[in-house]
Amino acid sequence: MRAHDVVDAYWAAAEARDWEAFARTLADDVVYRAPQTREQVRGRQAYVRVNTEGFAYDWHLRGERIVGEGRRAASWIEFTGPEGTQPGLCFFDLDDDGRIVRITDFWPDPYELPAGRAHLVERY
Amino acid sequence: MRAHDVVDAYWAAAEARDWEAFARTLADDVVYRAPQTREQVRGRQAYVRVNTEGFAYDWHLRGERIVGEGRRAASWIEFTGPEGTQPGLCFFDLDDDGRIVRITDFWPDPYELPAGRAHLVERY
Repeated sequence: MRAHDVVDAYWAAAEARDWEAFARTLADDVVYRAPQTREQVRGRQAYVRVNTEGFAYDWHLRGERIVGEGRRAASWIEFTGPEGTQPGLCFFDLDDDGRIVRITDFWPDPYELPAGRAHLVERY
Repeated sequence: MRAHDVVDAYWAAAEARDWEAFARTLADDVVYRAPQTREQVRGRQAYVRVNTEGFAYDWHLRGERIVGEGRRAASWIEFTGPEGTQPGLCFFDLDDDGRIVRITDFWPDPYELPAGRAHLVERY
């Protein structure tokens, strides 16, 4: 199975709250890391638990883009929760069985345009 | 030329300050967007100018990962400037000639681990 399709199934299952299908995309020894908070979750069961118990609010996600190559993929989703919509960016590694074994997850926030380049850009 | 290789050449040229090689990876009508600041730059010349004139400090980048599929790619670099090292994440579209025609650029910052999931994760 292509990395692109596995990541597509991962996000579709999350949005559908189909946690059995979600778990099937994951290796037993999946490791999740979020470099911004330096949080880590090890193992399929623990990672499903974060997703089912870690968010005390309704949320939805929309896939913006998936790029896959070999056993690697990257995705860009738009996540909507109580504070609005935010991009979420993930890099994935798959194992020999086509299951996700590593997830690196990024959540960029808005910031002020630096003065040093303000004269060189436009806004949209 | 593969999208993966074009993006590899793009980052290598930036790190080498080889702005002619950098420009050769870009379409005439390249559009750069940074959703966090909602800044936009249109056209190869304007985009090279941001990169050569927009940063009043020394910087270096190291490629962490590139994933390419068809005319699309994603990259994760680590950028080091005066404030330290930060991940930079880009999504690329290429045109029929294998030149980069669209760049969407994200710069995630550290943030506090939300209390709602602190009991479900470890730190690294």
